[in-house]
Amino acid sequence: MNIPSKYLENAVDQLASLPGIGRRTSLRLALHLLKKTETEIDDFSKAFVDLKHKIKFCGNCGNISDDELCFVCLNVNRDHKTICVVEDVRDVMAIESTGSYKGIYHVLGGLISPMDGMGPQDLNIESLIEKVSKGLTNEIIFALSPTMEGDTTNFYLFKKLQSYSPYITALSRGVAVGSELQYADELTLSRSIQQRQEFKMG
Amino acid sequence: MNIPSKYLENAVDQLASLPGIGRRTSLRLALHLLKKTETEIDDFSKAFVDLKHKIKFCGNCGNISDDELCFVCLNVNRDHKTICVVEDVRDVMAIESTGSYKGIYHVLGGLISPMDGMGPQDLNIESLIEKVSKGLTNEIIFALSPTMEGDTTNFYLFKKLQSYSPYITALSRGVAVGSELQYADELTLSRSIQQRQEFKMG
Repeated sequence: MNIPSKYLENAVDQLASLPGIGRRTSLRLALHLLKKTETEIDDFSKAFVDLKHKIKFCGNCGNISDDELCFVCLNVNRDHKTICVVEDVRDVMAIESTGSYKGIYHVLGGLISPMDGMGPQDLNIESLIEKVSKGLTNEIIFALSPTMEGDTTNFYLFKKLQSYSPYITALSRGVAVGSELQYADELTLSRSIQQRQEFKMG
Repeated sequence: MNIPSKYLENAVDQLASLPGIGRRTSLRLALHLLKKTETEIDDFSKAFVDLKHKIKFCGNCGNISDDELCFVCLNVNRDHKTICVVEDVRDVMAIESTGSYKGIYHVLGGLISPMDGMGPQDLNIESLIEKVSKGLTNEIIFALSPTMEGDTTNFYLFKKLQSYSPYITALSRGVAVGSELQYADELTLSRSIQQRQEFKMG
């Protein structure tokens, strides 16, 4: 693709550096941006400078925040003795949107994945151990993805945390609500049979 | 989606304003950008400011350029008496990449589309008529997309240009090279039968 301007080429390269965006798409996006007004483009660019320079990470849990502590950790009505361990900020948003969790979070910033060169030292694990070692935690909920990497991380965390003897739980695994049973994969179906629960109305 | 930072929310909004990018994808992209270094982010942002403020449009054909004239119009070895009319800059790139066209271009900047509120006055048509009216043009090639909007634009241009009696051609339409005949749509197949050409070896 012979792009007739080095400025356009640079914008295309920058957009194509984003995950899941190829050069053809990024050319389309760059030409779309070119049609915006100067003010719109300045706002567009400034959003990313602000994103990097002004955003903070909560000093307690690692969640994204505009202040030193995030809105969850600042909320005195939340149960600060229950910690939900998640992979990243999007998981916090997903759990918050259910409205069914009243504790606080701990954001690891990734999962242990030797294939991708991610070890425990690359994650926000030390601060979790330090927090739990104070003995003020009643329950730790592992809410990591049900994948190989999630399970590896769960196992590592369990080994590190069990000596402080908190109550450690994990999200239940089973058939998804609203899915059709015949399409559930064998592993999930088999696990949901083994871990069957007493039926309750409502 | 309850985004815990107004800076993140703003970046997500800006990315989601791009065509084909939803809010979930733009959140993923914004969090990816957040992991880049400050220098990388500054380069990223600057690319779009430069795109808008430094890019020029060729004064002759409307192609994107870093100078007053684009690389095609500046090239004295190209046939300046043959003008290929295209919808946008990407079409110039597509035709240039074939290496089989030696004339110059005229970029309309869109197609006539009453449904989208695009009329002839919104397009770069006047300058084409002015150019052709000088009587220095041998051939005009309509290279617009074979769609309703493309055909409408072709028809409009033909009416406007025929009085200057240049030789007006259009890209041939028919079955795509490398495609399987049985999957060609009926309109294309029927047209390629009507417009069949004498068979030549090689």
